[in-house]
Amino acid sequence: MKLAVIYDSKTGNTRQAAGWIAEGMRRIEGVQTGVFGVEDVDEAFVKEACGVVIGSPSYAALMTPNMREWLMGAGKLGLAGKLGGAFATAQYTHGGAELVVQSILVNELGFGMLCYSGGNSKGRPIIHIGPVGINGNVEEHNALENYREYFTVFGERFAAKAAELFG
Amino acid sequence: MKLAVIYDSKTGNTRQAAGWIAEGMRRIEGVQTGVFGVEDVDEAFVKEACGVVIGSPSYAALMTPNMREWLMGAGKLGLAGKLGGAFATAQYTHGGAELVVQSILVNELGFGMLCYSGGNSKGRPIIHIGPVGINGNVEEHNALENYREYFTVFGERFAAKAAELFG
Amino acid sequence: MKLAVIYDSKTGNTRQAAGWIAEGMRRIEGVQTGVFGVEDVDEAFVKEACGVVIGSPSYAALMTPNMREWLMGAGKLGLAGKLGGAFATAQYTHGGAELVVQSILVNELGFGMLCYSGGNSKGRPIIHIGPVGINGNVEEHNALENYREYFTVFGERFAAKAAELFG
Amino acid sequence: MKLAVIYDSKTGNTRQAAGWIAEGMRRIEGVQTGVFGVEDVDEAFVKEACGVVIGSPSYAALMTPNMREWLMGAGKLGLAGKLGGAFATAQYTHGGAELVVQSILVNELGFGMLCYSGGNSKGRPIIHIGPVGINGNVEEHNALENYREYFTVFGERFAAKAAELFG
Repeated sequence: MKLAVIYDSKTGNTRQAAGWIAEGMRRIEGVQTGVFGVEDVDEAFVKEACGVVIGSPSYAALMTPNMREWLMGAGKLGLAGKLGGAFATAQYTHGGAELVVQSILVNELGFGMLCYSGGNSKGRPIIHIGPVGINGNVEEHNALENYREYFTVFGERFAAKAAELFG
Repeated sequence: MKLAVIYDSKTGNTRQAAGWIAEGMRRIEGVQTGVFGVEDVDEAFVKEACGVVIGSPSYAALMTPNMREWLMGAGKLGLAGKLGGAFATAQYTHGGAELVVQSILVNELGFGMLCYSGGNSKGRPIIHIGPVGINGNVEEHNALENYREYFTVFGERFAAKAAELFG
Repeated sequence: MKLAVIYDSKTGNTRQAAGWIAEGMRRIEGVQTGVFGVEDVDEAFVKEACGVVIGSPSYAALMTPNMREWLMGAGKLGLAGKLGGAFATAQYTHGGAELVVQSILVNELGFGMLCYSGGNSKGRPIIHIGPVGINGNVEEHNALENYREYFTVFGERFAAKAAELFG
Repeated sequence: MKLAVIYDSKTGNTRQAAGWIAEGMRRIEGVQTGVFGVEDVDEAFVKEACGVVIGSPSYAALMTPNMREWLMGAGKLGLAGKLGGAFATAQYTHGGAELVVQSILVNELGFGMLCYSGGNSKGRPIIHIGPVGINGNVEEHNALENYREYFTVFGERFAAKAAELFG
């Protein structure tokens, strides 16, 4: 079963988070992951995937223009019916990462995807609408590494649900 | 296959919309619908349902306090893994109905549901994140009946997806 | 007192709505309006303006990539402290126009603007977070003209508030 | 000049954040602050206040039912035209605090308030739509104290803007 993680990244933080999600996904037997920057997406892989997780850094509390542009053209990838998830990174805890997650989910619903985060149904950590990571650029107590478990756990739960539905 | 539609309603508009969704759901063979006001939910039915669609009128661009309260206690219904949808009604086109749909979806994700609207994947009408109806209380050109097709089509698509996944 | 309305528009609907807002603004004595497409903004005018209203059509329930891009570079316009408003148009009543308004307001807050819609404080029509217009492209009962009054009334209230604060 | 901070709090975290905001507000000369739990609001004080900041913990990524209920009845307080701000606390960084801030701002706009966060206009820390604090209940690297400066700085900026507009 193929699962894709698609991200935009400027400094590498969102790419790192994407990698952690894929790492978690591969804990589920039979899962093959593809992790793609938004400017280098393997379209054939995405079309064959059962689930796609999309992430962006928060720029002024919105997804990046690159991601916005990419999503405008993503209709051709046949995303309808696939499992969809979303994640984001930000420099400030209050910096809009969840607003970014929410707007990616709006796009995914618009493609006819099945949106899934796991929520509170798998115990702790609860992952409300999608995982978020804050880097240590400006917040001294923070480091992206603090959020690694959330990303891997989310990836694992997402893959388990995809396997249950489509495996 | 059981599907539930749960709504809050003061003047009857959201109840009407709920009924239309259920009408659309029953176009799919084998579907049994339960339509419940938020103060009279048949919990056994909901627990057995494969999908639950939740709707509220917009009060000041948010769901009603009743619905908010009900959702706080809905964890006991075992919603995780069920297909989830959302709808809303409002008096003004700009009156926050979509914001209500969005916040209901946030709750559903939090329960671990699979959120689905059909989006643009079934042609017209495109239903972005969930159907919305505007009543004719204050907008002269509007009447809830104008939105009937959106609610029934949404119900039908939702039920078809539930049947495909869980039937 | 200068007030600007900045929009993106593909088919002319959002441009029309922008014009109606400016029409309403000019009902307040001493107001001079500038209405600019996002690709042809008079930056000197905007810098001198006391208030700026920004609008976009809904594309897949999000603002257009053009508007997103423009907002990324709008920091140089010195928007901080100005009165800010937002509006949107869509083809479907449930098509995400309010979500677009909400995300434009997020951007405006990020620039340090004072966001204002008038809300329910001026009686009917209540304008919750910003006016929205649905064109008649796909909804037979709708026509952008149905929403003309909302746009002009919003413009008038916005200008009255700007005059009260900065006039 | 009077400024009010109104909060709901179960464990004391949001009350603490409210206190920090008020502390920051009082750095501006002539500011008198009133900090009220949602069940014990001094309505006369709020009516005389030039600005009101409202905060809630995130419960399932939404404001608490108590706060929702209180906002339903807050129309009688004459909030229109006052400066409005919002804040939230949560147990998880991805736990919906910003979604709560956003929905409080929607309510404030609906009352006809002037919403303000300062955004990026005052340098670092940038405060996008409102400050957020994560407590240390479940995130080991976090403690509400980490966010103290954001709350005080936000309070100070909010009060400075209120003094500029209404002082």
